[in-house]
Amino acid sequence: MNDHLLFTILDLAGTFAFAVSGAVAARDRGLDWFGIITIAFTVACGGGVLRDLCIGAVPPAGLTDWRYLATAVAAAVMTMAGQGLVVRLAHPVTLFDSLGLGLFAVTGAQKALIFGHSAEVAVLLGVVTAVGGGVARDVLLNRVPVILQREIYASAALVGAGIEVAGERLGWVSNGRTWIALLTCFGLRYLSLRYKWNLPRSTGHDDSDN
Amino acid sequence: MNDHLLFTILDLAGTFAFAVSGAVAARDRGLDWFGIITIAFTVACGGGVLRDLCIGAVPPAGLTDWRYLATAVAAAVMTMAGQGLVVRLAHPVTLFDSLGLGLFAVTGAQKALIFGHSAEVAVLLGVVTAVGGGVARDVLLNRVPVILQREIYASAALVGAGIEVAGERLGWVSNGRTWIALLTCFGLRYLSLRYKWNLPRSTGHDDSDN
Amino acid sequence: MNDHLLFTILDLAGTFAFAVSGAVAARDRGLDWFGIITIAFTVACGGGVLRDLCIGAVPPAGLTDWRYLATAVAAAVMTMAGQGLVVRLAHPVTLFDSLGLGLFAVTGAQKALIFGHSAEVAVLLGVVTAVGGGVARDVLLNRVPVILQREIYASAALVGAGIEVAGERLGWVSNGRTWIALLTCFGLRYLSLRYKWNLPRSTGHDDSDN
Repeated sequence: MNDHLLFTILDLAGTFAFAVSGAVAARDRGLDWFGIITIAFTVACGGGVLRDLCIGAVPPAGLTDWRYLATAVAAAVMTMAGQGLVVRLAHPVTLFDSLGLGLFAVTGAQKALIFGHSAEVAVLLGVVTAVGGGVARDVLLNRVPVILQREIYASAALVGAGIEVAGERLGWVSNGRTWIALLTCFGLRYLSLRYKWNLPRSTGHDDSDN
Repeated sequence: MNDHLLFTILDLAGTFAFAVSGAVAARDRGLDWFGIITIAFTVACGGGVLRDLCIGAVPPAGLTDWRYLATAVAAAVMTMAGQGLVVRLAHPVTLFDSLGLGLFAVTGAQKALIFGHSAEVAVLLGVVTAVGGGVARDVLLNRVPVILQREIYASAALVGAGIEVAGERLGWVSNGRTWIALLTCFGLRYLSLRYKWNLPRSTGHDDSDN
Repeated sequence: MNDHLLFTILDLAGTFAFAVSGAVAARDRGLDWFGIITIAFTVACGGGVLRDLCIGAVPPAGLTDWRYLATAVAAAVMTMAGQGLVVRLAHPVTLFDSLGLGLFAVTGAQKALIFGHSAEVAVLLGVVTAVGGGVARDVLLNRVPVILQREIYASAALVGAGIEVAGERLGWVSNGRTWIALLTCFGLRYLSLRYKWNLPRSTGHDDSDN
């Protein structure tokens, strides 16, 4: 299996995992099936759409490639079909969500570089690609985005996008730097979940308010 | 009266109805008059702005055509002028909101096709045009978008945009398919309000949380 | 000191003030340090990013100019470093926030005019530039945008952007009109804070809901 096919499979697996996270959250809020599909699709493609708008790649890939929409609908339908299935899928979903985070951060940064933008833009848009969908999910479901509150999530995306862009600037072999960036982001996120690592908060916060 | 003039009148009537829905919601939340106008304008034009950004039609039509702004301001002023007026207008507003939904779904899909985009993009952006403003209203007023929770609303927009795009692909006469798409969406929405049709929700939701 | 250098300094001072307002709000909500930096950067650059998307200036200046990111990170770090510092900075921050409001409204309108857009688009995007970041902050922190609820804020931005655009159309000297627009917006905002001016609300609002 060549790298391109592998990346495509990982991309769709990450899309699926992101969509499941949206569908589960939407179902728990009591949305109807159309709302569940909408949130699933938004989580899966929202970050990429915002990246594409910022680099002028219109219409955004999330709207033009039917596989993203199909994957999001499939994830929503499976979520609605029963809780049992999702519970059995919980471990793979966490795994794919971490993989998706790394992959979206890396491919988001790559796409900005391919469009000729600077290293700063590429790193920022890598993070936007990876976390934009999750932020949109929480805004639509009327809560403070969980990824801004705690957990190593956006910061893992930042590390992944940073390695990819730094490697490109330093002339590393393309596939090599992509794998390092992807696996570092994935590892950071996955280990932080397993060992409950958190970023420090500042003093003066109000815990009762979250 | 030719079809073009009729569409323009329906477009502004739909804009007015959308703006009233925003102004009423903003007033009930205690916003000042500037906030009420802002929300009215956002509901009326938010979906179209997002569509135009996605197809690269900048600056968005909602910002360049003064009639949309004037219509939104007029709707906001009438809403603030007194509850009595709005109560008397409630039935026409519901009617125009349903018409606006159909019209925005159809014209949003048309615009994407005119810009040369695929059927999938056109259908998705038709729905975005029709429901984007209402989603923005609820996000700004800090609640879960009501159109994602229940009621036949976004799904009616999907049917309308789908008929328009399918008809274009099947070579139907332009005006004929537009009228069928518009009236189907309008009818679905209007009858669902009258007979309180809802889309099914999934199991496992938490009703107390909405 | 020439006007260009002075504007650059005011621009970064306004960015800093906007970023502090975001960082303080994020810290009070208990976000981790990455979330605080994200909100600070969003408040500082969110309005300008939306303006740039609407006029097709991609990638948006907020992403390409590293000084904005550096200023936002510095503001976030200072906010996290201790409440004492922020308390001592409270008065200058209010001052710079009012200056930033005027400056963002004027430069936002200018940029739209430079890109060849109409007076209406320029005024609307001046307001969007000035208040977009604050609206994004409140949406992310899950509350109704305070600038839509009360206080002379967005309306001061409207006056500033309006004077700039009217002056350009009337052929006033560029620097002259910019200073008049900036100082009028700043003065309106600053005096309204000092004397607690508010825009009238409509009847029928629900005070307990804010």
